Amino acid sequence: MAENSCREIVELGEHEIIRIIRSRLTLPKMPVPFGDDVSAVELDGTRVAVLKTDMLVGKTDVPEQMSVYQAARKAIVMNVSDFASKGVQPTAALVALGLPGMFAQKDIEAIAEGLNNGAREYGAYVIGGDTSETSDLIISISLFGCAEKSMLMLRSGAKPDDILAVTGPFGKPPAGLRLMYGDFTAPKDAKELVDSVLLPKARLAEGVALGKSGAVSASMDSSDGLAWSIHEIGRLSNVGFALNLVPIAEEAAQFAKINDLDAEELALYGGEEYEIVLTVKPEKWTAAEEAVAAAGGKLIPIGKATEEKKVVLVSNRKKRTLDARGWEHFKSQL
Amino acid sequence: MAENSCREIVELGEHEIIRIIRSRLTLPKMPVPFGDDVSAVELDGTRVAVLKTDMLVGKTDVPEQMSVYQAARKAIVMNVSDFASKGVQPTAALVALGLPGMFAQKDIEAIAEGLNNGAREYGAYVIGGDTSETSDLIISISLFGCAEKSMLMLRSGAKPDDILAVTGPFGKPPAGLRLMYGDFTAPKDAKELVDSVLLPKARLAEGVALGKSGAVSASMDSSDGLAWSIHEIGRLSNVGFALNLVPIAEEAAQFAKINDLDAEELALYGGEEYEIVLTVKPEKWTAAEEAVAAAGGKLIPIGKATEEKKVVLVSNRKKRTLDARGWEHFKSQL
Repeated sequence: MAENSCREIVELGEHEIIRIIRSRLTLPKMPVPFGDDVSAVELDGTRVAVLKTDMLVGKTDVPEQMSVYQAARKAIVMNVSDFASKGVQPTAALVALGLPGMFAQKDIEAIAEGLNNGAREYGAYVIGGDTSETSDLIISISLFGCAEKSMLMLRSGAKPDDILAVTGPFGKPPAGLRLMYGDFTAPKDAKELVDSVLLPKARLAEGVALGKSGAVSASMDSSDGLAWSIHEIGRLSNVGFALNLVPIAEEAAQFAKINDLDAEELALYGGEEYEIVLTVKPEKWTAAEEAVAAAGGKLIPIGKATEEKKVVLVSNRKKRTLDARGWEHFKSQL
Repeated sequence: MAENSCREIVELGEHEIIRIIRSRLTLPKMPVPFGDDVSAVELDGTRVAVLKTDMLVGKTDVPEQMSVYQAARKAIVMNVSDFASKGVQPTAALVALGLPGMFAQKDIEAIAEGLNNGAREYGAYVIGGDTSETSDLIISISLFGCAEKSMLMLRSGAKPDDILAVTGPFGKPPAGLRLMYGDFTAPKDAKELVDSVLLPKARLAEGVALGKSGAVSASMDSSDGLAWSIHEIGRLSNVGFALNLVPIAEEAAQFAKINDLDAEELALYGGEEYEIVLTVKPEKWTAAEEAVAAAGGKLIPIGKATEEKKVVLVSNRKKRTLDARGWEHFKSQL
């Protein structure tokens, strides 16, 4: 592909930007491939150090209704969710904080409390960091944990006939975001939808339990949307998927109905979701289901992996191919 | 101290902001105290994982003359310098990148090359990260490495009569910054001064060699200035210092002379310095000196630790007390 080096990043989109960066990097042998939800470094023959960094940006990640406390907590949860999708318990977080000059002491106190509570909620500690002055609020988190290499759940590894599953229904955060940013009618459960954005929860207990079960063949977080995650697991595992169900949260279905929206679209292509999308070896389904139940969650089967490398949805006796669209930084704002 | 929660952060300064954050955190038992140059997590009885995150911000850390390649490389070097001051070899870096929408593909390529070359220069690899859209360029680096806990050089630990030393002379970056931002006369060596800002070098080989020598009782980076680092080691070690020499780079002295500035001030209170400030047990001075020489550097003794908890400079038969001023984010821009 001939590269046009004058393209601006709003045209490129996040995935293409990451491809460009990767093409310029000297990569060592790595226990987790570049571009997976986390990175890792070998510690000894069996253990790895797991690392993740992701940045919360005021302008794009903090709706007006979100407090600075909630923003700080969200910055932690975003990163914990990636650890959850790999089955890894985070132990320590560092924060690089960019603060606008007009922030007051009480904002800093609220940020520190949001960081601390977010980390403690998931068994980790904030142990260090640095501050800078920035024009917009920036909360860049680095998360650390150790794991047995053999227990890591990677994006690749799904085989035909593996069961496709999710740790919960989709659609609440995209419905909540629409309520916050757009002109939509609020259903009775509006608070539930809005809270899914303001106070997101990572599926860490479920992810760690799944990692230990040894039943999972591939796994990914869903921050770019359900359809995107399914396509990505398919692409990296060299399989396709046949879905028989789009897992839609009841409150999201209600929101879609009263606003004349397609609930399946909302659940498939919405962003900011915090569920784990995974595949389970068929003979180990019960083990996976029990592991998640013991962690207080519920594993929902939604289809299976296929030889044919397409993602199709069979519902109401109709069959349609699902696009590899997803929510993307830069591009999604065009 | 009664806290006024309405103070804005420009009044607070970086050190006070970090104190406020720390007061809200639940801290675990840590092998490296909160607020040291790096953070660490125990891996087993003897080894620790070492972590650091610091963010480069376009507006405050990237002079107009600095290319995006140089900015990306600097973001890595800033963090490597902190590892150097603890004697730890970094192995992996992650980057959380905030890109302004008008950046072009060639800028992203240059950033990726700057990150890669910066990391490779110091034996590390960039193994992952994430991108976001921001109004200003933000390059937030997380650095990782492993170390023997007993070899870490902390900020505390200096004892009276320990020799105070630095890994090189001071003053070039503050002179270079003045040339870039202000109306000053450039000396013949102007390129050397400007390059100390555009292409900084971390004393990693020296730091790792010092760590292995076992001769060091305390150590700190000098990014907030030489005087600040000396005061900080003193405060945390419960000692003072008597300096008999301010280590001034020849090019910086020349710059000060032709611009009618005080060269000692420049070297003591300038920021963005990348030398290590350390104390050495007197009986191990030769070992420390030889370790640094073998790493290609030079250890310069500049004074010694004292019982009296002041930092005094004795030069030209005059004795004066040095303030604990330093270059500080937020406050220094007032």
